[in-house]
Amino acid sequence: MNPRATVPSKMRAWALTGTGSQDRLEFRTDWPTPTPGADEVLVRVQACGLNNTDVNVRRGWYSRGEPQPVAWDGSELEFPRVQGADVAGTVLEVGRRVENLRPGQRVLIDPWLRDRDDPHNPGKCRYLGSECDGGFADCVVADGRNVHAIESDLSAKELATFATSYGTAENMLDHARVTGADTVLITGASGGVGSALIQLARRRKARIVALCGADKRDQVAAIGAHAVLPRDPGDLGRALRESMGSERVDVVADVVGGPGWPRLIRSLARGGRYTCAGAIAGPRVELDLRNLYLHDLTFTGATVTPPGLFARLVRYIEAGEIRPLLAASYQLEQLREAQRAFIEKRHVGNIVVTTKSDT
Amino acid sequence: MNPRATVPSKMRAWALTGTGSQDRLEFRTDWPTPTPGADEVLVRVQACGLNNTDVNVRRGWYSRGEPQPVAWDGSELEFPRVQGADVAGTVLEVGRRVENLRPGQRVLIDPWLRDRDDPHNPGKCRYLGSECDGGFADCVVADGRNVHAIESDLSAKELATFATSYGTAENMLDHARVTGADTVLITGASGGVGSALIQLARRRKARIVALCGADKRDQVAAIGAHAVLPRDPGDLGRALRESMGSERVDVVADVVGGPGWPRLIRSLARGGRYTCAGAIAGPRVELDLRNLYLHDLTFTGATVTPPGLFARLVRYIEAGEIRPLLAASYQLEQLREAQRAFIEKRHVGNIVVTTKSDT
Repeated sequence: MNPRATVPSKMRAWALTGTGSQDRLEFRTDWPTPTPGADEVLVRVQACGLNNTDVNVRRGWYSRGEPQPVAWDGSELEFPRVQGADVAGTVLEVGRRVENLRPGQRVLIDPWLRDRDDPHNPGKCRYLGSECDGGFADCVVADGRNVHAIESDLSAKELATFATSYGTAENMLDHARVTGADTVLITGASGGVGSALIQLARRRKARIVALCGADKRDQVAAIGAHAVLPRDPGDLGRALRESMGSERVDVVADVVGGPGWPRLIRSLARGGRYTCAGAIAGPRVELDLRNLYLHDLTFTGATVTPPGLFARLVRYIEAGEIRPLLAASYQLEQLREAQRAFIEKRHVGNIVVTTKSDT
Repeated sequence: MNPRATVPSKMRAWALTGTGSQDRLEFRTDWPTPTPGADEVLVRVQACGLNNTDVNVRRGWYSRGEPQPVAWDGSELEFPRVQGADVAGTVLEVGRRVENLRPGQRVLIDPWLRDRDDPHNPGKCRYLGSECDGGFADCVVADGRNVHAIESDLSAKELATFATSYGTAENMLDHARVTGADTVLITGASGGVGSALIQLARRRKARIVALCGADKRDQVAAIGAHAVLPRDPGDLGRALRESMGSERVDVVADVVGGPGWPRLIRSLARGGRYTCAGAIAGPRVELDLRNLYLHDLTFTGATVTPPGLFARLVRYIEAGEIRPLLAASYQLEQLREAQRAFIEKRHVGNIVVTTKSDT
């Protein structure tokens, strides 16, 4: 039996038609179902998580000036484009050169599509839903090396909360070489990456100080932060000393940036590490190079994750070492509503859309 | 025979008496010759190199605001203090627990005095001539682990050009993991650290683009830079493309900072490394965090060098793999004149003072 016979030729998908408001997101019911190449896999999307990248791309934020249709890496975007990076689903069809996967398997997709010949080069990496069509649709195609079978009691909605946020967070902690000897300051701690950072730093037995809005304090503490401070604590050194016993931390893991950024850097101990994967409060910050060089600091940016990292995440999920923080789920058709809730940032954890009401 | 008998009880030394102009440097002829402890060595200074640290400390620059008497690490300075970090000399006296050194040996001193119990902790490191008396004097005491015997045909004046500049430069290249596969952009290329960076990056077989004042172009090219660009090349990307064939470099090694800093960061390829050991054109710079995180960059500050690095430098010198760039030498009594020349920055390489006219 040819499995293709069971795959409809048309499917539902959200097409981003240009840079701008949510009007640029069009819901289509006649989108051609993609066909996997020899090294690719066709995945039936059960749920797909939302990310800042979707919103930033739509708004043209990555252009650095006037909104322009450019991707996270500055490359030109092609329209229409199906966004959505964090796919949980099942295998529908497997390309002829793909081994170790079979139709029906539950899978997560690693959204960083690497060059087959140069997989460690971040300059040759594509992001699912950005340089190729993603998961805000019934089906998606991805390189077979990016499709990871998973055994878990979690629902598809829950599994769709992990990929980008937890991959980014684990990459940040790798870059900052976080161990159980470290105290880690985490900004934006109620968000997708922030809440993942708490869990993954906790998994490494680090001490965690989290910054978040006052209304989310209890939820963030429940995720595992040892101390929770207000987003703008005024005298950060004093707040750290009173909550953790020292004005200095070993690591800052930041997705916020903005006006409070110099305070974060001043809170680092000599030899401290700053790692960054976002700047939701504003990317332009004032750096005093004397802090960087006289304190022997290291700053790392963490966007593209290296090969091997996602397989580690899947093991953590299967072992129950990290857990999903599902804030809300919406039907695929409700992507605009889901994204509005996502942008309002009243939630803790991640928001997903689902293709079926029963997943 | 007691070797102490041959050491005069008084010596010449420059005493820094407070923060301010060169008037705060007082030449003394009755300074007590220091006595080495059991783990220490008394070194007869033959020559001592000048550094920005001496000038920055005297000016109170490290306070970040109004000039204050603080050291490079923000700690309070004690006065009077003998400055001078880059000592070439001979062993006069050896503490009873020091092995492998004997009076008369030619030595270089590693200026980073580490904690004996916690040598890898940069937070417990002192700098010769800053938190303890240094080499602008006839004699200096240092921890025996910092005193390195050296066999070389170079003069003491030449040997005194290496310690801080080359140690800092090698540390920067270590932090940036520079190899023969890299193109390295070096700022301030005519200065002590800059010219050391050229030689040490060349030793690693990297391709080198140097930025320096137009009047020093030929000298910087002669040190080993593959391309030399003006300090302010306008369109840096274009200048790089025309001179090296690509708008992007893998590594920026910077001691300048200042208004041109954002251009340096934008010149880094995805996954590129920025390393910094100074900010002579101004420490406050504008950072766009999107460059840091979306390009997966790494920034490192390089001040305190780790154990083991200085011994490597001594091997490079003994093997002739790096060479001294002695711009000028002055008598010890002429330290103020030497420092004025140092501050004017008309030279290429390093300036030293000597304790004898024949060294």
